[in-house]
Amino acid sequence: MHLAITGAAGMIGRKLTARLIADGGLGGSVITRLSLYDVVEPPLPPDWTGAVDLVAADVGSPASAEVVVAGRPDVIFHLAAVVSGEAEADFEKGYRVNLDGTRELLDAIRRAHLSQGYTPRLVFASSIAVYGAPLPNPIPDDFPATPRTSYGTQKAIDELLLADYTRRGFVIGVGIRLPTICIRPGRPNLAASGFFSSILREPLVGQEAVLPVSEDVRHWFASPRSAVGFLIKAATIDSDLIGPDRTLAMPGVSATVGEQIEALRRAAGDGAVALIRREPDETIMRMISGWAPALEARRARELGFVADASMDEIIGAHIMDELGGELPRH
Amino acid sequence: MHLAITGAAGMIGRKLTARLIADGGLGGSVITRLSLYDVVEPPLPPDWTGAVDLVAADVGSPASAEVVVAGRPDVIFHLAAVVSGEAEADFEKGYRVNLDGTRELLDAIRRAHLSQGYTPRLVFASSIAVYGAPLPNPIPDDFPATPRTSYGTQKAIDELLLADYTRRGFVIGVGIRLPTICIRPGRPNLAASGFFSSILREPLVGQEAVLPVSEDVRHWFASPRSAVGFLIKAATIDSDLIGPDRTLAMPGVSATVGEQIEALRRAAGDGAVALIRREPDETIMRMISGWAPALEARRARELGFVADASMDEIIGAHIMDELGGELPRH
Repeated sequence: MHLAITGAAGMIGRKLTARLIADGGLGGSVITRLSLYDVVEPPLPPDWTGAVDLVAADVGSPASAEVVVAGRPDVIFHLAAVVSGEAEADFEKGYRVNLDGTRELLDAIRRAHLSQGYTPRLVFASSIAVYGAPLPNPIPDDFPATPRTSYGTQKAIDELLLADYTRRGFVIGVGIRLPTICIRPGRPNLAASGFFSSILREPLVGQEAVLPVSEDVRHWFASPRSAVGFLIKAATIDSDLIGPDRTLAMPGVSATVGEQIEALRRAAGDGAVALIRREPDETIMRMISGWAPALEARRARELGFVADASMDEIIGAHIMDELGGELPRH
Repeated sequence: MHLAITGAAGMIGRKLTARLIADGGLGGSVITRLSLYDVVEPPLPPDWTGAVDLVAADVGSPASAEVVVAGRPDVIFHLAAVVSGEAEADFEKGYRVNLDGTRELLDAIRRAHLSQGYTPRLVFASSIAVYGAPLPNPIPDDFPATPRTSYGTQKAIDELLLADYTRRGFVIGVGIRLPTICIRPGRPNLAASGFFSSILREPLVGQEAVLPVSEDVRHWFASPRSAVGFLIKAATIDSDLIGPDRTLAMPGVSATVGEQIEALRRAAGDGAVALIRREPDETIMRMISGWAPALEARRARELGFVADASMDEIIGAHIMDELGGELPRH
């Protein structure tokens, strides 16, 4: 089985690669070849002895989409994207990568389908940013996508394309609307949602973090570990069970910032909580005010997608996966 | 005031042009210049003595979008589109005209906005084809767009772009989801909905028509006259009343094919009804089965969009506007 991943050098891309290598297979088939794409050449994954392609490709150009499709991977995980904050700041780049990138990939698949009958599964990472205020709590599966950001607009358009190309038989598309990833390891990126991770991640290792919103802000989260599990589930689930709306809202953990902080206190004590510095930011508060508080995610749950159980479990997953299983002494 | 119309040589485009010329103004401003665009050069409209541009332009190319924007029209009516049947039959053409055409136009406006502060009103003709089965009756305004055709997909994507470009301040976008136009004058086009018109239009002038579906099929209609009224209302309404979701579902007349036929009987007698030949067509029946039976259109009604009162009024409008006010003797 040949797998391709766009955005393979990103956080989720690297974790997905590692999980696939650890599993050795996908849906009962042995993985024989991995094709990894990103704007910078992805590093050679450790512990992989099969065939591998490590390719620097600028998603958003027709040429790079052709390259991805040329090797005829059985499954393509399409993770490459410009994050929300950057898509809002750089309008053209956001549309080029997040809209054109997906469309070029779908069109390259369509051409290969028409010429050679190639029909891969395409697992597409969408986002709860497709939802726009005013939002119910929880948001039902049939709630309309009325995004209030360019990023959400681009993801909503990608979902429509995925459904139409799948309906026409060119591809087997499965989209998943990922919750906000928490705790995101490493350094902050340009996502406006970054503080939801940093207020946990930094204090866990004895560093200060800035909280720009009030504690009653409620949002919808999944650990990196769960997000990878969703992607693998999307790649292996019986496609016929999904129906014409090809993108599923993913389950997650609904928590307020205050509940995040209490979970931090349980994991790391009052000293960690004291490292959170409150610096209200009107711009971020305005952006956040329209974000999803919780999703029903009934379709996905019935199809067997499983989320983290709690914010405590999310923090525990971070300590296990990123900190070697224990908190540093400080 | 300078007005531009894409798709100006089409049926609605010609009727809109005629109405604007008859009115002489739009929203209280005198019309001084008309710029008319279509794939073939639109004819010089009769009774127009102001400045006019008649331009053959292939919507879907960046160059033609630049041409439309170059004259800095105050209002652009964007009607150019490939109809549903053709967009389904010719996948690439549908996406090029219906998606790229709208996006190129929005991007040309955005560039002129950034360089010169140009911010026109863009009135976009969307369609109830954005709705996909299973559909409630009536469909509420907040029902999600889950199209089941490429045409509907393209229109739904255009609506998302219109909202995002408006939110960013590049344009004042107002989209309207038009009902199926009935009675469409002239010859049949490639729209799968053509029979809804032809079963009335042909018998009214003593000709046979084919009915490919059963009489209990219910659908949502507006006369050409109403559609033109919707476009003018969309061009003149206070933009701030619309909010972030820039496309409004239009009011209309909900009727079954059987009710259409009874209205035909009232207008033209049993002889006309006898001219309808039943030829069930499985393909059309399957397509039609997922179409909108009726819309609530509450937002649009509250904003003052007014539909035809009944199928009888729709037939009456056709007799007045297309047949000189009376049925031919036969």
